[in-house]
Amino acid sequence: MQHNTELNIGLFGFGVVGEGIYQVLKGTPSLQASIKKVCIKHPDKKRDAPAELFTTNYDELIHDPEINLIVELIDDAVEAYKIVTTAFRAGKSVVSANKKMIAEHLPELIELQHQHNVSFLYEAAVCGSIPIIRNLEEYFDNDLLQNIYGIVNGSTNYILTKMDAGLNYSAALQEAKQKGFAESNPALDVEGWDATNKLTILLAHAHGIKTPPSAVLRQGITRLHEGDAAYAKEKGLKIKLVAQASKLSSGKVAAFVLPQFVTSDSQLFTVSNEYNGVIVETKLADKQFFYGKGAGRYPTSSAVISDISAFSYEYRYEYKKLKRNETAALTYAFYLHVFVSFPEWATVNKWDFEEVTEYHSTPGRQYLKGLISAEKLRAADWFHNESVSVIVQPEGIVEKEALVHKSIKKVSLQLAGVGL
Amino acid sequence: MQHNTELNIGLFGFGVVGEGIYQVLKGTPSLQASIKKVCIKHPDKKRDAPAELFTTNYDELIHDPEINLIVELIDDAVEAYKIVTTAFRAGKSVVSANKKMIAEHLPELIELQHQHNVSFLYEAAVCGSIPIIRNLEEYFDNDLLQNIYGIVNGSTNYILTKMDAGLNYSAALQEAKQKGFAESNPALDVEGWDATNKLTILLAHAHGIKTPPSAVLRQGITRLHEGDAAYAKEKGLKIKLVAQASKLSSGKVAAFVLPQFVTSDSQLFTVSNEYNGVIVETKLADKQFFYGKGAGRYPTSSAVISDISAFSYEYRYEYKKLKRNETAALTYAFYLHVFVSFPEWATVNKWDFEEVTEYHSTPGRQYLKGLISAEKLRAADWFHNESVSVIVQPEGIVEKEALVHKSIKKVSLQLAGVGL
Repeated sequence: MQHNTELNIGLFGFGVVGEGIYQVLKGTPSLQASIKKVCIKHPDKKRDAPAELFTTNYDELIHDPEINLIVELIDDAVEAYKIVTTAFRAGKSVVSANKKMIAEHLPELIELQHQHNVSFLYEAAVCGSIPIIRNLEEYFDNDLLQNIYGIVNGSTNYILTKMDAGLNYSAALQEAKQKGFAESNPALDVEGWDATNKLTILLAHAHGIKTPPSAVLRQGITRLHEGDAAYAKEKGLKIKLVAQASKLSSGKVAAFVLPQFVTSDSQLFTVSNEYNGVIVETKLADKQFFYGKGAGRYPTSSAVISDISAFSYEYRYEYKKLKRNETAALTYAFYLHVFVSFPEWATVNKWDFEEVTEYHSTPGRQYLKGLISAEKLRAADWFHNESVSVIVQPEGIVEKEALVHKSIKKVSLQLAGVGL
Repeated sequence: MQHNTELNIGLFGFGVVGEGIYQVLKGTPSLQASIKKVCIKHPDKKRDAPAELFTTNYDELIHDPEINLIVELIDDAVEAYKIVTTAFRAGKSVVSANKKMIAEHLPELIELQHQHNVSFLYEAAVCGSIPIIRNLEEYFDNDLLQNIYGIVNGSTNYILTKMDAGLNYSAALQEAKQKGFAESNPALDVEGWDATNKLTILLAHAHGIKTPPSAVLRQGITRLHEGDAAYAKEKGLKIKLVAQASKLSSGKVAAFVLPQFVTSDSQLFTVSNEYNGVIVETKLADKQFFYGKGAGRYPTSSAVISDISAFSYEYRYEYKKLKRNETAALTYAFYLHVFVSFPEWATVNKWDFEEVTEYHSTPGRQYLKGLISAEKLRAADWFHNESVSVIVQPEGIVEKEALVHKSIKKVSLQLAGVGL
C-alpha cells in the first residue's frame, strides 16, 4: 500500500458538517489535510473562517490542479450529482455524504469511477459514524455473508422510541422536529425513502446488487396505528423500521424496508432514539452487531474524516461483490409473516394471503396475522392504502421451498374463518 | 489496490478451526484459495481429509515455493512463534490467531514484517469474529480515537453471566468448562492474562503503543466475592471483566484489565455469556459498539477466512499509529474510583487511597469505596493478595489534574472515619 499524500481539499457546502470538518482538519495536523477552498451558495452569510477561503464558483475547486480531493457536503441531491460527476470527469476523487444522490445514481457513479480512475468514498451516507460500508468492503467481502439488517434512519427511530413510550405518531414527530432529529419536511424519512436509499447502497457492497431504490419493497412509519403500538407493548415487542437484505437459498436476495416487530433478545431492541444499529450475519460468524450514532454533525463529520484519512492512503472501494456476482439479483419470490391492521374487513383482500393464522376485530380497527408472498404484497392495492399498516413479524421471511409442505386445505379453512 | 492472487496455503494445525478452514475453502471456490499442505503433530490421528495433505515436517510448507501464505492455528505459543518467525525469514506471509504469542512478541514481529516485506494478519486473535483490528487500522486510524474498552474474553464473561444469575464462582467455572467455554486449565482466562494479551495487541493498533502484557495493570475474576455480586445485584449493576485503554489529556494512555461495575445504560451491560463487545470512543463519533462471538470454531474461522481473503488483495496492517506517535506511552499517572472487598480491615492499607468515600463492615467481609492512584494500586501488597477483590466503579478514571482541587482536609477526615 502507498504512503499517505498531503491533501488539499476543495469543500462544497459549509453547513454544520462542512464547518466541523474545517475545524477538525485545522486542529489535527497529523491528518496532513487542509481545506484550500470552499464553494458556497450564499456568499453573504457570516461565517467563522477567513473570507478568502470562500467562492461561489465551482470551477475554482474542480479545476484547481493543487486540489486533489473534493469533499461534497451539500443537501441538494441534484446539485451534488452535478458536482460529483464534474469532479470525476476532471479526474478528481470525491468524498460525499449524499445518500439520496448516491443511491439514485450508483451504477453510473461506479462506472465513472473506473473510467476516470478516481476514488469515491461515502461512509457518512449510511449510518453516519458506523463504519458499515468499510466493513462490508473489507471484512465481509467473501461469499459467506448471508443477511444484513438494521435500523439505518435516526429520525424514524427517534419517533418510534417516543411512540413506544406512549406518544402518538404526530406528537412523536413533533418532538423529533423540535429536537432537530427530523426535517421540517420529514417525508423522505417517515415514508422510508431515506432508509431505502441506504439499503440500496448496502445492497451493492453487501450482495453485489445494483438496483434503483424504487425496486425495494418499502413502507414507512406514517401508517402505524395506536392499536399496533398497544399490541407491541402487550407482547413485549418493539416496532422498528428495519432495512433488510437477506440471501435466499436460490442465491437471490430479498430486500425490504418495512416496520418490524423486534423481540427483546435482538440487539436491535436496544437501539433507541436517534441511534442506528446494523446486524451482519455470515455463515460462520453468526451475528455481528454494529452500533453508533447515525446522523448529526459530529457522527457525520467523523465518517467524513475517516474517508479523508483513508483517501490519503489512496483507498478505494473495490466493489468486490459486484465484480464477482454477475448474476446477483433482487427477488420478490419469498413470503413474509406479517401483522396487518386496517379500518374495515373489506379494506384488505384476505385471498392475497397464503395463510391467515389469527385475526381480531375491534370497533374501528381490524387486525390479522398471516403469511403473504412479497410479490402479492407489493402488488396489492391495499398495501398502498394510507389506512393500512403492515408490520413484519419476528418470524420474518419464509422461502418458497419451505411452503410446499404446507397444507392447502388448512390455508383455505383459515381463510374461511375470516368470514370470506 | 492490487487484484487478487490465487492462494496456496500451508496450514499449521488441524484442530476444529483448522479443519473448519479447510472445509470452507473447499466449499467456496470464489475465495480462490486452497490448502496445499497441512503440518500436524500427531500423524496417526484419524482426519477427515486425504492422507497426502498431511506432513509432520515444517519445511515442506515453509520452503515450498508454491505456497504463498502460511496459516498458523496451533495452541502452543512457543511453537507458533517459531513457525511465524521462520515463515517471515523465508519471505512468507502469515495469518495467525495466537494472541499470546502475538502479544508477547509484537515489537519483534512488526520489525520482521518490515524486514522481510511480508504481511502478518491476526484478526482472529482479538474478539474472534469482531473485526476490531481491521477497524482500528482502517477506520479509526486518525488521532481522534480516545478510548477503547470492552469485554474481550468469552470464558470469563460466561462465568460472570452465570454468577450474575446466582451461581458462585466455582460452580460457574465448572459450568463454563462443561459447555466448552473454559479450558481445563483456565488460568490464562480467569486471571485476566488472555484479556491482557488482547489489550496489548489493541494498544498497538489503537494508540500506537508497544508494551509487554506484564506492564498492564491487571486483575482477573478469581477473587470476586459473593458479597461483590450481591452488591452489584442490589445496585442494578453487572460485574464485567473489562479491558480498557484510555487516552488521557497528557496524551499518554491508561490501560488496565480489571473487573468493572457496568451500568444498565452501557452497551457492555447487554454482552452476555460467551459473547464479546467493544466500545470505541472518538472525539467526534461518540461511542461505536462492536458486538459478536468472541471465540469458538466458527467465529474464529470467520476471522481467519476474512484475513485470507484480505491477503489475496495483498492487504497488510500499516500500524499507522505506531508510525505517527513515536512518543505514545502507557502511564500509571491516573486515579481510579474503586470498590474493594476484603476479609479484615487490616488487610488493606487505607492510606493508599486519596479518598475513601464509603465503607461497610459485615462479619467476615469488609467493603470500601474510594479513589486510588493506579501507581499505588499496582504497587500495593494487598492488591496482589488473593483475598482482596478490586472492582472499578462506573465513574472509572480521574486524571491527576482534576484532583488538585479536591480538599486534602476532606480526604483526611474521610480516612479518619475508617477508624485510622
